[in-house]
Amino acid sequence: MGTIICTGLGPGDPDLISVRSDRLIRAARHVAYFRKAGRPGQARSIVEGMLATDVTEHAMEYPVTTELPFGSAEYKRLLASFYDDWAMRLATLAATTDVVVLCEGDPLFYGSFMHLQSRLHGRADVEIVPGINGMTGCWNAIGIPITWGDDVLSVLMGTLPEDDLLRHMQSADALVVMKTGRNLPKVRRALERAGRLSDAWLVERGTMPDQRVVRLAETEIAECPYFATVLVHGRGRRPETGE
Amino acid sequence: MGTIICTGLGPGDPDLISVRSDRLIRAARHVAYFRKAGRPGQARSIVEGMLATDVTEHAMEYPVTTELPFGSAEYKRLLASFYDDWAMRLATLAATTDVVVLCEGDPLFYGSFMHLQSRLHGRADVEIVPGINGMTGCWNAIGIPITWGDDVLSVLMGTLPEDDLLRHMQSADALVVMKTGRNLPKVRRALERAGRLSDAWLVERGTMPDQRVVRLAETEIAECPYFATVLVHGRGRRPETGE
Ligand SMILES: C[S@@+](CC[C@H](N)C(=O)[O-])C[C@H]1O[C@@H](n2cnc3c(N)ncnc32)[C@H](O)[C@@H]1O
Ligand SMILES: C[S@@+](CC[C@H](N)C(=O)[O-])C[C@H]1O[C@@H](n2cnc3c(N)ncnc32)[C@H](O)[C@@H]1O
Repeated sequence: MGTIICTGLGPGDPDLISVRSDRLIRAARHVAYFRKAGRPGQARSIVEGMLATDVTEHAMEYPVTTELPFGSAEYKRLLASFYDDWAMRLATLAATTDVVVLCEGDPLFYGSFMHLQSRLHGRADVEIVPGINGMTGCWNAIGIPITWGDDVLSVLMGTLPEDDLLRHMQSADALVVMKTGRNLPKVRRALERAGRLSDAWLVERGTMPDQRVVRLAETEIAECPYFATVLVHGRGRRPETGE
Repeated sequence: MGTIICTGLGPGDPDLISVRSDRLIRAARHVAYFRKAGRPGQARSIVEGMLATDVTEHAMEYPVTTELPFGSAEYKRLLASFYDDWAMRLATLAATTDVVVLCEGDPLFYGSFMHLQSRLHGRADVEIVPGINGMTGCWNAIGIPITWGDDVLSVLMGTLPEDDLLRHMQSADALVVMKTGRNLPKVRRALERAGRLSDAWLVERGTMPDQRVVRLAETEIAECPYFATVLVHGRGRRPETGE
């Protein structure tokens, strides 16, 4: 009986994959990964050149991404049956062999793998290998400590309503805003209202070959790629304590 | 001219070190790491068995940890001159050779390396390699997604005043509380007041050989090790959107 092994790939640079995930990916006979139909897929791109020549690839293509209103009944139904279907297919495969599922960043941090994990419960052995999450790659791309001392860090999704963003931006020291994309104008407005726009950075495709790091206030862009994160550094509430 | 390369080691399991850090650590001629005097040091323990036989080790021993009141003038003075001293020593070494500095987790996330980084500015080339942060190792030790959908995650230090902890615990969906140690009773009280104690987990030494994962409400312990983190999972504010 095989195992479904979900490997975290880290932020993008294949050199930032963990030793364990690297070993599992290179040895895999079956790999599966999510992607938008018609795209190479970010997870698959990260492992380019690492897969065995005789590997079998299973591209799990989302049936819908932004074509239908997010959260509509039809949208939910399509996604649920997509996950049901792939959970069944992977469980069937795992009856006889190991399957490595490739996930960007860390699988348990805002990751899609959870939709398979919950459905696979009791039907297959599942193992998860952590990865460097995307935000960690992003603050390393800037090169300044994101937090120290007693700083409070809040991680927000750009999909939140503007007033929710504002409230959290006002009460935390350091900020990470993910899922920016077309939400960038709203995120920018909330940062401006919170008085934090001048301290904000935008990192597009952190640690990837076409990485871009800019101060948000210095750009005019109204939209950014899916792999983009806005960050505001903490200021150290108290001096660091040593060990 | 050499470089000072700070390598993130990840949460503890050496198999979770990145491919790049692993390569740098094994090839290093000089390694430096912080530790409490008289202790092996967590960073050094993680790389046990990985260092070259002819490596030169530089143990940077904190002059003080909890003996003096935290934040007192004397405490601050001692720590500042400790960092000054090591920044000078590492810069001198780096004039002729590379030096690898070992840091637990990710160096730019509540890490001590920042005190050297700021002092080395303009005096030596510094490169930082990200690592899986400790909290990511901890939620993987539990095995449940920490966040999904529009969840807000707040990262708090157990050293914060109880009312600050409470306020953030009430407004975020998912929680991570680091630097618990002797602050555990205060953290527990704040969680109880926020109505979130029954959902809290305590992970001691996540991904290390003697890892311990318990529900916080089910333990009586009043103190925990330095490498311990309290976590509360999000509940998914909205369904996940797919890619
Ligand atoms: C659905 S979340 C998945 C997060 C992933 N599991 C992780 O651990 O980072 C996708 C969001 O993560 C952020 N992200 C992930 N990797 C990134 C990178 N390399 N550069 C910039 N943003 C990134 C973007 O904000 C993107 O919208
Ligand atoms: C000064 S911070 C350093 C964090 C580190 N740079 C990182 O990226 O995780 C130290 C705190 O991190 C948390 N921590 C780090 N690694 C951990 C582990 N393996 N298990 C539990 N807690 C950990 C503990 O709460 C500890 O008090």
